[in-house]
Amino acid sequence: MRLDEISTPSRVADADEGVSGAELGLAARNHGMPLEAMRYDVTPAGLHYLLIHYDIPFVDPAAWRLTLDGLVDRPLTIDLETLRAMPATTVRSTMECAGNGRARLEPRPVSQPWLVEAVGTAEWTGVPLRDVLTAAGVRDGAVDVVFTGADHGVERGVEQDYQRKLTVAEALSPDVLIAYAMNGAPLLPQHGFPVRLLVPGWYGMTNVKWLTRIEVLDHAFTGFQQKAYVVRQSADEPGEPITRIAPRALVIPPGFPDFMTRGRVVRPGPVLIEGRAWSGRAPVERVEVSVDGGETWAEAALAPDGGHRWAWRRWSWSWVAEPGQHLVTARATTSDGEVQPVDAPWNRGGFANNAVHRIPVTCLEA
Amino acid sequence: MRLDEISTPSRVADADEGVSGAELGLAARNHGMPLEAMRYDVTPAGLHYLLIHYDIPFVDPAAWRLTLDGLVDRPLTIDLETLRAMPATTVRSTMECAGNGRARLEPRPVSQPWLVEAVGTAEWTGVPLRDVLTAAGVRDGAVDVVFTGADHGVERGVEQDYQRKLTVAEALSPDVLIAYAMNGAPLLPQHGFPVRLLVPGWYGMTNVKWLTRIEVLDHAFTGFQQKAYVVRQSADEPGEPITRIAPRALVIPPGFPDFMTRGRVVRPGPVLIEGRAWSGRAPVERVEVSVDGGETWAEAALAPDGGHRWAWRRWSWSWVAEPGQHLVTARATTSDGEVQPVDAPWNRGGFANNAVHRIPVTCLEA
Repeated sequence: MRLDEISTPSRVADADEGVSGAELGLAARNHGMPLEAMRYDVTPAGLHYLLIHYDIPFVDPAAWRLTLDGLVDRPLTIDLETLRAMPATTVRSTMECAGNGRARLEPRPVSQPWLVEAVGTAEWTGVPLRDVLTAAGVRDGAVDVVFTGADHGVERGVEQDYQRKLTVAEALSPDVLIAYAMNGAPLLPQHGFPVRLLVPGWYGMTNVKWLTRIEVLDHAFTGFQQKAYVVRQSADEPGEPITRIAPRALVIPPGFPDFMTRGRVVRPGPVLIEGRAWSGRAPVERVEVSVDGGETWAEAALAPDGGHRWAWRRWSWSWVAEPGQHLVTARATTSDGEVQPVDAPWNRGGFANNAVHRIPVTCLEA
Repeated sequence: MRLDEISTPSRVADADEGVSGAELGLAARNHGMPLEAMRYDVTPAGLHYLLIHYDIPFVDPAAWRLTLDGLVDRPLTIDLETLRAMPATTVRSTMECAGNGRARLEPRPVSQPWLVEAVGTAEWTGVPLRDVLTAAGVRDGAVDVVFTGADHGVERGVEQDYQRKLTVAEALSPDVLIAYAMNGAPLLPQHGFPVRLLVPGWYGMTNVKWLTRIEVLDHAFTGFQQKAYVVRQSADEPGEPITRIAPRALVIPPGFPDFMTRGRVVRPGPVLIEGRAWSGRAPVERVEVSVDGGETWAEAALAPDGGHRWAWRRWSWSWVAEPGQHLVTARATTSDGEVQPVDAPWNRGGFANNAVHRIPVTCLEA
């Protein structure tokens, strides 16, 4: 029995293929954020989305060490007490899974079957990565910085500890943290206890959890996850790497739900349509709302960012609902003019699908 | 447009029908406990399973009141400060969704598609319900006690606030709590903040979250959820009510996983097989383990309950793995002689499926 016999290549579902047992297994473990939790500026514990490639490792905080080595003048080994004693920064950041929206693509790439809920916002506290790299002294000729987590598994036949990289320039950005607290409390086990990487504005896969090692390389890192998180049309293309979060607006589902379909019900009269919008690229500067599925649009009021460049912003629009079926939709536009698409272009990994959010709403008779 | 046009009757999936978009929507919101979290005696925040019928309501704790009325001598209205000042009890309790195991039934009842992970253990703190009922004075002739939550929605065409009942005798059990804390902290929004009912040993549906009203009736309560949570073969039977949690043992998946299939990989040699077992009926007194899918069984060591009658118990068994394919299985037996079935009898709602847990494990060559 070899690993590549039980861990097979990625694939795309057949046209009429329902969600498989394996995809359901992933959906039962990993979870999205119930959309009504967008009422909170900062997502409460347990409601932030989670995507864990392998198992949640158990890391003994007393035995934990972070190694920083490779192309540096002074390799470092840091324990938790030392890290917590260093000058710290807190950043409020919206994190989103690169696979958010995957299960809405047709044909559906077979992997964690996210609809639209793989997002959350937290206050992350930690030591700027830049400070630690500076203390170690990054040498001339350094190209990439590789981050290794304690989570171990096999994926598409390749046994691995989870690893991702940043370029040296990206790693020296002042917002990148070696984080040990979330919303003022130690990281929960599922969010990387005791320490994780936090890269504001980037999709979740770069925010390596259960961080154990940082290595500076004199060449480009080409590990498994760098090759997996790419936009491509077929498996034999190298593809374009996924980096920063595409702009997106989501709607807090109005009214009340049907248990089974999550279809929404309102009664005639004023209904506040509100939600959140964010972007890891240029900032969101406009949100529009439609109640006819995108045929006509109205301008939503966008709340200021309150100094939180990397966090979602609240938006709202007052609707007067009339009996009948409606399709509530929102779209964000950035200061660079990037607008959410009505239909996202397909890609084989199902990444970065930021097609507009649509919520069917039934308005009953008065 | 009427509610019964958008909120349709329950149904069973066709023989070859994959998981539907609606089921996937539920799986993305509600979440199970990653099975490796069984390493903790008490499940950390955010890892306990969640099943929320409608939306998580926002309840202002300053405005929150609990009304106790109906067939009582002194109707009460209690605010949060008053409740927290009353003598409190803490109970460690394993809670499980009545629908756990549903998606493993064939044909599959279409609802929240749980596999086996809808479980968690917490330390719940609150005021014994009995104390509050006694203070109000339950009158002669009282039959049922109805608990109403603030969560509102429509289900199978019926608009409702979530409601469940206990009989007066059940409600006066000393273990039943009006709970306001979980693991020493205020309830999280998704677990019923500020106050929920906690009925140790019963499936989750009875533990009404976001509790706002307790009403004592002189007749049997027959609300929607009482009729929904029943074991029956067809929709036209009344069925047998679901009450206490059936015995179950789950295995902490050994070794490391394949990302996509969650199949497990170990290397030859000693592997500790461990997990948890619980029952809301008679206590678990025996756990057996099999590595051949149930053809042969070995006795696991069962840890004492440590005085926590309603919490899961750890069990373990030492395996020496040899190269090849294995099917790791465990089954619990109660002091009443109730044994987990290898194949659970089917029921239309997909409730209380406590069929044994099976985990495919590949042992590589040395």
